[in-house]
Amino acid sequence: MRGTGQGSRTGRRPGTGDTRADILRAARRRFADLGFDRTTIRAIAADAAVDPALVMHYFGSKRELFAASVELPFEPGAVVTALLEGHHDDLGRRLVRVFLTAWDSSKDPGPMLALLRSAAADDGAADMVRDLLYARILRPVAEAVGSSDADFRASLAATQMSGLAIGRYLLRIPPLASAPVEDLVAAIGPTMQRYLVGDL
Amino acid sequence: MRGTGQGSRTGRRPGTGDTRADILRAARRRFADLGFDRTTIRAIAADAAVDPALVMHYFGSKRELFAASVELPFEPGAVVTALLEGHHDDLGRRLVRVFLTAWDSSKDPGPMLALLRSAAADDGAADMVRDLLYARILRPVAEAVGSSDADFRASLAATQMSGLAIGRYLLRIPPLASAPVEDLVAAIGPTMQRYLVGDL
Repeated sequence: MRGTGQGSRTGRRPGTGDTRADILRAARRRFADLGFDRTTIRAIAADAAVDPALVMHYFGSKRELFAASVELPFEPGAVVTALLEGHHDDLGRRLVRVFLTAWDSSKDPGPMLALLRSAAADDGAADMVRDLLYARILRPVAEAVGSSDADFRASLAATQMSGLAIGRYLLRIPPLASAPVEDLVAAIGPTMQRYLVGDL
Repeated sequence: MRGTGQGSRTGRRPGTGDTRADILRAARRRFADLGFDRTTIRAIAADAAVDPALVMHYFGSKRELFAASVELPFEPGAVVTALLEGHHDDLGRRLVRVFLTAWDSSKDPGPMLALLRSAAADDGAADMVRDLLYARILRPVAEAVGSSDADFRASLAATQMSGLAIGRYLLRIPPLASAPVEDLVAAIGPTMQRYLVGDL
């Protein structure tokens, strides 16, 4: 299936080195516009000018393609490491700053919006959000700082972070959507600090 | 279009006194299952065994039907009045308790889930959530307690309440989904208190 990199300019292309990237690009756009459920492999394949079978060959399933297409503006493990390196007194503020800076500065907010949209409609995408935000970032952080009830604390922190993302990027509540990052760090950082390490 | 109330048992029914209720019931089920975008007037009409034109006659548009079908477990104006009657020191805790009690005890959580799901996918439903939670409940409360920056405060409170609903009812993060109401009141009440009346 692998081409020489000299693919012809017309018709379906063989699996050149760019094909995987083309499929991912088409998938990102479709998922961002329509969410997980309403996006079809057939439509993504058409956008990328390849055969649907080639999409399955590369990614195995729509769910795996979705997971691969979500280009997060951060890497969960690196976020956890960076957060735990600093002072624990300042953890909540740094957490809010890291998320907002990554989201605000990402050139294409599409994948994150697609993930949020899809999580609301589709159980598979909801699993991904829960896994990513809760299981791979917030719970390891709560456990590492030695809090009791790490699961409950991490789940409280997840409500605040997912609500912040939804209010700022999806509902676009006016004062929230336009607030400078540091205003939100000052307002929401102490909430995250309390949820993760403070008195509940 | 109006029938006598003695509609036949087969075929499309005329507009009996129950027809409006039948349409609303069908609409609630469809919107809860599929969200706003993917629900069609045609499908709702078929479920209610009426002509699609009759649905339009009663409700005017899909959006108006959606708004009518959302049976909230509380009335926004009554919530605001009740919240403002008590001590302002305890406002955050009471707010969390009122929401969670209403949602947990509502016999059918479908409409609220439909609203949350649809808000993520559809701008019209997002407008409704913003209007309901932010403009009709949280901002009037923030204004009534005399806080400066009532808009910003209400929007912060909206992030926490929408995130709580999503984490508990949609993502169902385990410790959050099963937590007793009073544990969440104790954990999240102080956040709401600070957002609405405390130091930011």
